[in-house]
Amino acid sequence: MEILIINGPNLNLLGKRQPSIYGDISFEEYIQEIQKDGITISVFQNNVEGEIINALHNAKVDGIILNAGGYTHTSVAIRDAVSAIETPVVEVHISNISARESFRHESLISPVAAGCIFGFGMMGYELALDYFKKLI
Amino acid sequence: MEILIINGPNLNLLGKRQPSIYGDISFEEYIQEIQKDGITISVFQNNVEGEIINALHNAKVDGIILNAGGYTHTSVAIRDAVSAIETPVVEVHISNISARESFRHESLISPVAAGCIFGFGMMGYELALDYFKKLI
Amino acid sequence: MEILIINGPNLNLLGKRQPSIYGDISFEEYIQEIQKDGITISVFQNNVEGEIINALHNAKVDGIILNAGGYTHTSVAIRDAVSAIETPVVEVHISNISARESFRHESLISPVAAGCIFGFGMMGYELALDYFKKLI
Amino acid sequence: MEILIINGPNLNLLGKRQPSIYGDISFEEYIQEIQKDGITISVFQNNVEGEIINALHNAKVDGIILNAGGYTHTSVAIRDAVSAIETPVVEVHISNISARESFRHESLISPVAAGCIFGFGMMGYELALDYFKKLI
Amino acid sequence: MEILIINGPNLNLLGKRQPSIYGDISFEEYIQEIQKDGITISVFQNNVEGEIINALHNAKVDGIILNAGGYTHTSVAIRDAVSAIETPVVEVHISNISARESFRHESLISPVAAGCIFGFGMMGYELALDYFKKLI
Amino acid sequence: MEILIINGPNLNLLGKRQPSIYGDISFEEYIQEIQKDGITISVFQNNVEGEIINALHNAKVDGIILNAGGYTHTSVAIRDAVSAIETPVVEVHISNISARESFRHESLISPVAAGCIFGFGMMGYELALDYFKKLI
Amino acid sequence: MEILIINGPNLNLLGKRQPSIYGDISFEEYIQEIQKDGITISVFQNNVEGEIINALHNAKVDGIILNAGGYTHTSVAIRDAVSAIETPVVEVHISNISARESFRHESLISPVAAGCIFGFGMMGYELALDYFKKLI
Amino acid sequence: MEILIINGPNLNLLGKRQPSIYGDISFEEYIQEIQKDGITISVFQNNVEGEIINALHNAKVDGIILNAGGYTHTSVAIRDAVSAIETPVVEVHISNISARESFRHESLISPVAAGCIFGFGMMGYELALDYFKKLI
Amino acid sequence: MEILIINGPNLNLLGKRQPSIYGDISFEEYIQEIQKDGITISVFQNNVEGEIINALHNAKVDGIILNAGGYTHTSVAIRDAVSAIETPVVEVHISNISARESFRHESLISPVAAGCIFGFGMMGYELALDYFKKLI
Amino acid sequence: MEILIINGPNLNLLGKRQPSIYGDISFEEYIQEIQKDGITISVFQNNVEGEIINALHNAKVDGIILNAGGYTHTSVAIRDAVSAIETPVVEVHISNISARESFRHESLISPVAAGCIFGFGMMGYELALDYFKKLI
Amino acid sequence: MEILIINGPNLNLLGKRQPSIYGDISFEEYIQEIQKDGITISVFQNNVEGEIINALHNAKVDGIILNAGGYTHTSVAIRDAVSAIETPVVEVHISNISARESFRHESLISPVAAGCIFGFGMMGYELALDYFKKLI
Amino acid sequence: MEILIINGPNLNLLGKRQPSIYGDISFEEYIQEIQKDGITISVFQNNVEGEIINALHNAKVDGIILNAGGYTHTSVAIRDAVSAIETPVVEVHISNISARESFRHESLISPVAAGCIFGFGMMGYELALDYFKKLI
Repeated sequence: MEILIINGPNLNLLGKRQPSIYGDISFEEYIQEIQKDGITISVFQNNVEGEIINALHNAKVDGIILNAGGYTHTSVAIRDAVSAIETPVVEVHISNISARESFRHESLISPVAAGCIFGFGMMGYELALDYFKKLI
Repeated sequence: MEILIINGPNLNLLGKRQPSIYGDISFEEYIQEIQKDGITISVFQNNVEGEIINALHNAKVDGIILNAGGYTHTSVAIRDAVSAIETPVVEVHISNISARESFRHESLISPVAAGCIFGFGMMGYELALDYFKKLI
Repeated sequence: MEILIINGPNLNLLGKRQPSIYGDISFEEYIQEIQKDGITISVFQNNVEGEIINALHNAKVDGIILNAGGYTHTSVAIRDAVSAIETPVVEVHISNISARESFRHESLISPVAAGCIFGFGMMGYELALDYFKKLI
Repeated sequence: MEILIINGPNLNLLGKRQPSIYGDISFEEYIQEIQKDGITISVFQNNVEGEIINALHNAKVDGIILNAGGYTHTSVAIRDAVSAIETPVVEVHISNISARESFRHESLISPVAAGCIFGFGMMGYELALDYFKKLI
Repeated sequence: MEILIINGPNLNLLGKRQPSIYGDISFEEYIQEIQKDGITISVFQNNVEGEIINALHNAKVDGIILNAGGYTHTSVAIRDAVSAIETPVVEVHISNISARESFRHESLISPVAAGCIFGFGMMGYELALDYFKKLI
Repeated sequence: MEILIINGPNLNLLGKRQPSIYGDISFEEYIQEIQKDGITISVFQNNVEGEIINALHNAKVDGIILNAGGYTHTSVAIRDAVSAIETPVVEVHISNISARESFRHESLISPVAAGCIFGFGMMGYELALDYFKKLI
Repeated sequence: MEILIINGPNLNLLGKRQPSIYGDISFEEYIQEIQKDGITISVFQNNVEGEIINALHNAKVDGIILNAGGYTHTSVAIRDAVSAIETPVVEVHISNISARESFRHESLISPVAAGCIFGFGMMGYELALDYFKKLI
Repeated sequence: MEILIINGPNLNLLGKRQPSIYGDISFEEYIQEIQKDGITISVFQNNVEGEIINALHNAKVDGIILNAGGYTHTSVAIRDAVSAIETPVVEVHISNISARESFRHESLISPVAAGCIFGFGMMGYELALDYFKKLI
Repeated sequence: MEILIINGPNLNLLGKRQPSIYGDISFEEYIQEIQKDGITISVFQNNVEGEIINALHNAKVDGIILNAGGYTHTSVAIRDAVSAIETPVVEVHISNISARESFRHESLISPVAAGCIFGFGMMGYELALDYFKKLI
Repeated sequence: MEILIINGPNLNLLGKRQPSIYGDISFEEYIQEIQKDGITISVFQNNVEGEIINALHNAKVDGIILNAGGYTHTSVAIRDAVSAIETPVVEVHISNISARESFRHESLISPVAAGCIFGFGMMGYELALDYFKKLI
Repeated sequence: MEILIINGPNLNLLGKRQPSIYGDISFEEYIQEIQKDGITISVFQNNVEGEIINALHNAKVDGIILNAGGYTHTSVAIRDAVSAIETPVVEVHISNISARESFRHESLISPVAAGCIFGFGMMGYELALDYFKKLI
Repeated sequence: MEILIINGPNLNLLGKRQPSIYGDISFEEYIQEIQKDGITISVFQNNVEGEIINALHNAKVDGIILNAGGYTHTSVAIRDAVSAIETPVVEVHISNISARESFRHESLISPVAAGCIFGFGMMGYELALDYFKKLI
């Protein structure tokens, strides 16, 4: 099973800035450490909304984990891409978006996602992987 | 590790009505089948808002999985109970609440939950258990 | 044909306080006086939201007349119970809710009711019975 | 007792288009079939908002059953006519307006009606007649 | 100078119903009694929105006094007619619309009127005539 | 192919007032000049909302071009008529309604129209005719 | 009959700046020119909200004409003063407030005024005087 | 004089958890310490909305002090109970609800309470007792 | 202990107009009658918003009781003054502001007040004094 | 005459996925088939918002047909680009955006477009070409 | 060049209370220290809204720097004064108003100011002076 | 001191189109002309939202001046980038955004900016430089 993690804007700063929290390994190394048997994980990060759409279109994988960062709340275009493709997309947010500013409470992507995992920190990506693994 | 699942109003109808989907076992039997090594799960279901509050107050467990059903969107009182206790509470919804009527889009409980898992069907309970297991 | 009338919060005060209006008979006696041939009516009143949900779940009748009182405008949980069961539910309000405070204008229950009868005073219950009788 | 049924815009299409549902009799014939002993029913249908106001002003009857169709949600003028006259007006809607588009949820007429009957299909007119009959 | 008074829906009931207030003369007689030297007044009343538009289009007068009744708050079409013609239009309301229901607080016609006179009772028509007389 | 153009309130003033723009021919003459081979065009204009509904009901044509003028933003009744009939209806507005006052931004008719053409001036009617011609 | 005109903030600039419009007389001289037989007019202008309240409290006159300027839309305190006193208060605005910015559309004072005269320019003060004169 | 204090959801946690603040006495003991001469105080706490309604209905006292906790902002049913009974009800909140989340700013109960005391901490109960004592 | 009562706009009319209610003593005399042992009360009333701010700045007292009248709902400036000073400020309203017009439901001052006492009539001032007395 | 069609996000999926509908030719081939005599059409598609802005800036054509896809409802930046250039821009949407989710009802681009064509499916592009052809 | 700084309510507390921050000089001394060659600065502070209006009317200077404090968000009257005078007015706020409570996000004065400088602390006054100096 | 100016969408058109206003030098040349002693200015302009985020991430400067153009009102992602980096960011807008369309009134970036300078035309960039210079 192949899984693609798509990280949106500013998520390239994850792991780079706070080594005391995530160690001195990159986000990609971190993800690969936790990867489950039988699952191949690739990671794509981009700050450009349209490149996230391109990545969704071009993905040849069994499942996508999408953390669209700030585009979550403003991008009808990414939502449309998620609903246009057949690959199931799980939406992950590291923080508890409902506990932050009101403009972060609504996700345009949630209604078209296969499921949503919010607020568990980095562990949210692992739970999303668990989901895909259970589907097998 | 002991985990309490609290199911709110109408969730007593789960598993009783659609045996073709969940088999002819009750929700409690179902949960126990999927239970992880080292985790003891108990299940509490009630249609009365105040009894859910009582259950939150009285729980002597390591973690709570709460699906407050229709009270999710209207109960300041349950929210207050979740934030008053120290046990971590994971919010689960079987359906994708953001894809349903607009009055289901906002959860009063999410901002005080340890994390939120929405839209994965019954599998959401398992993912919540995974979360508590990873915490050990 | 068996019909269950479910009266919500504060409706236990009906008939008890104003004997000059309804005579010195209880609401239940009143309902039975007006009951039609071939219809057996039972009455359930409770001030607890969850008990109304329980009553909806447990009803073994041909039709339900529901006056959810103040829960009408706030209870997603009762709404979910009404749409979960197969028994047809007619919503009745004694007063003209659209002529009162703005928070009473919207009923969460109406969209899932078989029909709505508002503002005819106590006579609304009779009209609901007429509906069920015509269905035969 | 004389009752006038006023049907608003597009309700002239009732019964004309779906003979398999209402048979091959007109709406007026249908109403007269169901008419109760001692009640004389007349029917007025018009697509012009002002003609409905004229009909309300000119009615010399004991009760009016008003289905204002699409004007229900937009016509302050019809509302004013209903509250200006002394004849009691019962508001009827064939469909469950609270289960349709949000702009149909509020009726400008309801607050000044003697009572409201929504969502029972054609049977709503009969229930309104029952109301007037019980008043005798 | 010729002035046309256009009265909208339900204003035909003015003067007919409350002879103790306005005497036993019709609204038109009342207006003519108060008419100023050098001003010829005609009165047009209609309950049909479109006929009010027709009257605005066809008026060959020096000024129009418009009380659009309930259409005041809902009719973009009458507003468009007022702004399409060159004759100045003074908007009059007998009651103090800002002290009534909230849906009466905004007039769609006011922004395109030459001026607005609200809440002076029947005397509002006289004040509008004063305005036109002062223009001479 | 027969096409009916329905023009709503105040559109009778088109072509009459500004001969320097449209020449000294009437709107109907203008439309017939531009009419395509094989298409017969008739024009109906009325300022009364209900007459527009009547025209929609009674049309025996292959397509309708509707410019409902000010009723566009307020008439649930015309919307219901458009969705009740089977003839396809194209909505046209001469001006760019989204660039005008905010109460003109939403059209109640658009959601039930076969398509919408806004802001091209008089040429919008021609484009609507092109649409019907291409359907052949 | 004694009438007090109260002008609110920035209205001291009236007549001072545009002599070509109002001549080279002050606002007070202007008002006295137009004053009717039998009416004594005094003028009070102040930019301080509380001083307008004081003036309303202390007025020993038969009627007050109030143009509260920018306080019209924000001052609950002036509104309370108007409703606390027994002297009738007519609200005047020189401009057509409903045709300006949206925050000028609602007047907090209108609901407690004896009547409202908007948009007639300086002539509005005269019409208000006419009203008081007709009351005699 | 007999006074009943009704404490709503989560208020059973008061005094139990923070002995350093309130000492090691229960809320009920605390209240009785501060009780005034001539006033008998009883305390009722419940997490169930309907039980609070029952308590309001059944109270045979001279005054009620109600802290409805989280139900304050959501319970039309408790509001209706307060307005249905004749015993005066004083609303108390320990915290300053207007300084917390926006969904706590509005109390459904305030409009039907005899008076409101917010934000004084536990001392609010004493002030409410003072009120009842002054009434004697 | 010294307490300053600050009364805002229109509260100078208290006690002056209705001697049958408060007797023929002024508000200040009334307050001094009810003053507690050990508390010196001074009263400041002003209709000018800025003078209330000045009074808040200049107060050399142990506590302030503020009834800002109509400025309660509109004055960010008074709110800022209350939060800028260190003297505790108790907000009092004679009427039940939540039961009046909707623009009176929100107080800008409440979130920065030490506590709020609403709807007890003149007795609210006494309860505020009780609060300060209990603080000693 | 040269026309540029700019297609926004996800519109690259048009024609690729549903050969049974559009045949096995690409969107560009399709457009060229329908192209009119004397009109040269080029097509630009991009999922990146900023590249659409670049294309608008750099276009050296006589007219632009813009279908901004999901950016239609969120992009102030594309709107600014449309209003900054002098080339006329016609807005096209394949679907009837007013009949879809509410966040698709408003287009930020419409107010600055030369005209809008919505809901005619792929034929909308042809109608836009007709418009440009008629301009010659 | 003469510049007038107008400081609104509560800004008299600047510099008086926190000598460790601004030293032991008054605001006026502080401003004069930073004053530029060729610019004469005067400072006016007042807590009364109307006095700020008076100061705006009476200023005989080349530029005004206005920090209206809490009146920024509520005063239509000050806005009107700013737009009535010809002297350019620069709006300054010490704090970042968009990062504070939502009622501080909108300034009624900004739309009529020559420019806005927010959030730079006391340095904002210097930047405003820079602006006026560059104009020379 | 090194300062980076980041200009967002459509700001590449500045200076290119209106040589009569800014002369025939480019924006970059213009900025360098006005640059202060001891400050090195670089300019980055891009129409792609994500590239602006990249530029914010990669900047190795002492301060950033950001004019995000149309993204100001829609980009949570740019806001997150501004708050993620430690370099202080001053927000500049050439026009007075609060005096334009309502969707331009709120900036998502302002709450996380070091300060805001709006409406001074091109001079805003100079004032921002002044700010950074004063910080030294």
